[in-house]
Amino acid sequence: MDTNAQIDAVPNSINNALPIEADAVIIGAGPVGLFQVFELGLLEIKAHVIDSLPVVGGQCVELYPDKPIYDIPAVPVCTGQELTDNLLKQIEPFEPTFHLGQEVTLVARREDNRFDLETSAGTRFITKTIFIAAGVGSFQPRTLKVDGIERFDNSQLFYRVKDPVQFHGKNLVICGGGDSALDWALNLVGKAESVVLLHRREDFRAAPASVAKMKELCDAYEMQLLIGQVTGHEVKDDKLSEIKVTAPDGVTRRLPLDTLLVFFGLSPKLGPIAEWGLDIERKQLKVVDTEKFETNVPGIFAVGDINTYPGKKKLILSGFHEAALAAFGAAPYIFPEKKIHMQYTTTSPKLHKILGVASPVFD
Amino acid sequence: MDTNAQIDAVPNSINNALPIEADAVIIGAGPVGLFQVFELGLLEIKAHVIDSLPVVGGQCVELYPDKPIYDIPAVPVCTGQELTDNLLKQIEPFEPTFHLGQEVTLVARREDNRFDLETSAGTRFITKTIFIAAGVGSFQPRTLKVDGIERFDNSQLFYRVKDPVQFHGKNLVICGGGDSALDWALNLVGKAESVVLLHRREDFRAAPASVAKMKELCDAYEMQLLIGQVTGHEVKDDKLSEIKVTAPDGVTRRLPLDTLLVFFGLSPKLGPIAEWGLDIERKQLKVVDTEKFETNVPGIFAVGDINTYPGKKKLILSGFHEAALAAFGAAPYIFPEKKIHMQYTTTSPKLHKILGVASPVFD
Repeated sequence: MDTNAQIDAVPNSINNALPIEADAVIIGAGPVGLFQVFELGLLEIKAHVIDSLPVVGGQCVELYPDKPIYDIPAVPVCTGQELTDNLLKQIEPFEPTFHLGQEVTLVARREDNRFDLETSAGTRFITKTIFIAAGVGSFQPRTLKVDGIERFDNSQLFYRVKDPVQFHGKNLVICGGGDSALDWALNLVGKAESVVLLHRREDFRAAPASVAKMKELCDAYEMQLLIGQVTGHEVKDDKLSEIKVTAPDGVTRRLPLDTLLVFFGLSPKLGPIAEWGLDIERKQLKVVDTEKFETNVPGIFAVGDINTYPGKKKLILSGFHEAALAAFGAAPYIFPEKKIHMQYTTTSPKLHKILGVASPVFD
Repeated sequence: MDTNAQIDAVPNSINNALPIEADAVIIGAGPVGLFQVFELGLLEIKAHVIDSLPVVGGQCVELYPDKPIYDIPAVPVCTGQELTDNLLKQIEPFEPTFHLGQEVTLVARREDNRFDLETSAGTRFITKTIFIAAGVGSFQPRTLKVDGIERFDNSQLFYRVKDPVQFHGKNLVICGGGDSALDWALNLVGKAESVVLLHRREDFRAAPASVAKMKELCDAYEMQLLIGQVTGHEVKDDKLSEIKVTAPDGVTRRLPLDTLLVFFGLSPKLGPIAEWGLDIERKQLKVVDTEKFETNVPGIFAVGDINTYPGKKKLILSGFHEAALAAFGAAPYIFPEKKIHMQYTTTSPKLHKILGVASPVFD
């Protein structure tokens, strides 16, 4: 994900490209967004999928790619990555178009009753329906709260590592106490000119083995651990030259550096969704009923962890059910003339054709 | 399944056995009933499962064990049997008790607010909650509609084959045009004294290869095919001695026989469920809301194909969602004092303990 995608100005040249005319745009490429592609596909509705992350999988892949999930029905155990891979395989016949690493910045009703939809990358759509499967929102790295330091974003201040080689030979300060901070500290020791790990307290959330290894390296003077918080910075020749670190005892020290890496974790944000006129309750989208999972704005549906209704449980399997019913709920917007009959994948020759599988002979 | 299970008198000796005290009884061992075990298990509620069929799997296994299903989320394709096997594996940690080949004959509220529940096999329960996951109802063979012939049920008239050897050496008439009729006719030719296949028309629903093989055997005089319907029977020495077969041209012939096998398919019946005081709409159980999927009788929940509510789609994945919410809805009946918190299988050490899996170290 480009950390700054959402605040980048959209170049006019991109904005002048023709918008994509769509039947359905799904916001969120997590498991529920992916399964929404499937349920729409069975009704012969082709979908575009947008996600702020650069990969599909949503929280499953962002938060626990390798951690086992046990409560997907008929899947005794799988990781978030496996779940995602299986869903991608399942939706293959429907050939969805993915628009990744970009966030939806605008949703507005058009005079023809469709929606204008734009992303931070300048991709524009005119769509009949929208499915918000945005989970807990879009994942944004928690930023360092130091006035004025944001001007060094992506030059000397980084919240993600895309290319570790750019940090080789540099004097690095790495902030954070979780796995990302520790892993990158251990990874860059010996390659960077110097590595200082800066954490606000003595306790670490990172794996104990990583913490032990870090302490060993500190004892051997190969890296340094500082306890404290960044409370200021100095600029010299238009560059970030040093940060001010305040220790728990209140003493502030100056710490010269070339590059500052900050790993304070990711924080999901509802973001622009909050501005589309949708009923929101405790950062969740209210749906009108549990028949269609449509929001108060006709044509916009909310499925998965982002929605709320009486009895709602934030379970992936509930999102799957919601996606199925939302697809049926949306069909009249896309095919106003057509009567939608439910068919079964096990027995319907029509669905077999759509799925691209052979229709067995039935007795 | 014992065809007559539901109409057999329950022996008093069995009825005198102590009832099983249970927290939850699930009626129906199809995919949704099996997943109900899982969702209850996560809340530390142990379940008993009853099914009229002699095996688990419900319609999936009864109607399409080998036919592919494509719409189970994250399972691109599986057969009904595979789905069942995976669910059985998933619920293993919860050690449910299965009571198969028996139908629930009685459900009655007790003074202590629990339910008395009895099956056709005489198994008795006192349970706090009941989950009806009975799908399209219990599968009963369609019977032969000939006045008075039912007195030969299981002596000379059979709707299922439990032990084929009992038909060896007999003069058999086999009724039906589907796979069961053809398969048993082909199986018993040469072992029975004689085999007559009786079908009401020239067209067969059975596999073309079986039909061809049957015609070959008829041409070789090893068996006989009659087109017509049973319209009467004769009794001699208290035994079924012959049936009357009326051909499409209206002519009735007499056909002597020892044993009559009838394969008119299985027909799901709501059966005794209709008598428990539950709100029923078009043979489905109405649930009060989509928050708990509880019926109008507090403590009795309905999940899967047997329930109905606005927007209901008869999808297995919807039944899974319903089972999850019903489990939470039922918990207060079982643990009135306990506050139920939702936890995630990915992150909860408590759920890992319940599932019998190692709890990973989290950052």
